[in-house]
Amino acid sequence: MDRERLKKQIDFVLEIDKEKNILRQTHLTDYRRQENDAEHAWHMAVMIYLLKEYANEEFDVAKAMMMALIHDIVEIDAGDTYAYDTKNLETQKEREEKAAERIFGLLPEEQKQELKGLFEEFEACESSEAKFARVMDNFQPILLNDSNNGEDWKVHKIKKSQVENRQKSSQLGSKDIWEYTSELIERNVKKGNLIDE
Amino acid sequence: MDRERLKKQIDFVLEIDKEKNILRQTHLTDYRRQENDAEHAWHMAVMIYLLKEYANEEFDVAKAMMMALIHDIVEIDAGDTYAYDTKNLETQKEREEKAAERIFGLLPEEQKQELKGLFEEFEACESSEAKFARVMDNFQPILLNDSNNGEDWKVHKIKKSQVENRQKSSQLGSKDIWEYTSELIERNVKKGNLIDE
Repeated sequence: MDRERLKKQIDFVLEIDKEKNILRQTHLTDYRRQENDAEHAWHMAVMIYLLKEYANEEFDVAKAMMMALIHDIVEIDAGDTYAYDTKNLETQKEREEKAAERIFGLLPEEQKQELKGLFEEFEACESSEAKFARVMDNFQPILLNDSNNGEDWKVHKIKKSQVENRQKSSQLGSKDIWEYTSELIERNVKKGNLIDE
Repeated sequence: MDRERLKKQIDFVLEIDKEKNILRQTHLTDYRRQENDAEHAWHMAVMIYLLKEYANEEFDVAKAMMMALIHDIVEIDAGDTYAYDTKNLETQKEREEKAAERIFGLLPEEQKQELKGLFEEFEACESSEAKFARVMDNFQPILLNDSNNGEDWKVHKIKKSQVENRQKSSQLGSKDIWEYTSELIERNVKKGNLIDE
């Protein structure tokens, strides 16, 4: 066993523990508190495995799950950027690239390249794994929002078009989930949970 | 798309959100608060992917990751049983079986069987996937304990033999991680974090 190698891997494992303290805007199903990044990633990875039948294309399940599990690790340094926060969205890419370099850089070189690659692949949203992981990145919070009668949307005065713009990337990975999502959005517009301009 | 099938899957996805509110005895690396089951499962799944080179046997990575992600779902009904709580450990199996039946039972029949099967396979700790997932179920909290200078052990007055008994199943899945764990335990005995009778 290469001790120095294992030491680097353990340093990374302990560093990413911080992801458990990064809060998202989305609240849990009982609206008791905000969800954190680690919980969101856990939920996404379970959903990738469970809902894989709805993917437009075949994909490598372990790869897509790992992509989901690590896609928010950069937020340890870069913070969570709310999907509808236009100002912070401008600097998000630069902040996250720097974070990826530092945090994945704790790992042995080839694992750094692999995980940084998975993160970048997720961001690019071109491979079948990235496209389906993205579907779950969209679908997981919208299911929570819907279960809470749109409280998060009402608090932030979110418009139907904003949710549609965010969610439309789901079409790339799953026509079925996109169809379900469109109906979910309409249902919430009718209830007055989303603003229809 | 089979709407009734998707509805069952979404019911399950929303039900397991409750796992985020089940607290474990282990505290996060900064000892600020206790970890919850979803965070623990997230961390374990990342570690399975990242540390797979240390497994004694080859294994199916996606299967082991899913096993890790869902192994604590039964605690939504059965509660978390502390590894050193002898009284509650007696009734744990029965409580967890009942919970598995109800919660996995929300899914379409063949997915219920698959996930219940994964849970039971994890518990039996005989397949290569179960053995390596078990290593991470042991290794993840002991790394947190060690990073917090053994505070959780000190609070509960835990003995070296108790930790060894819990951790020894790691030998089945990874001789390397077991070797590292043994040294970690010794280091904490020397520091007075674990009681050496």
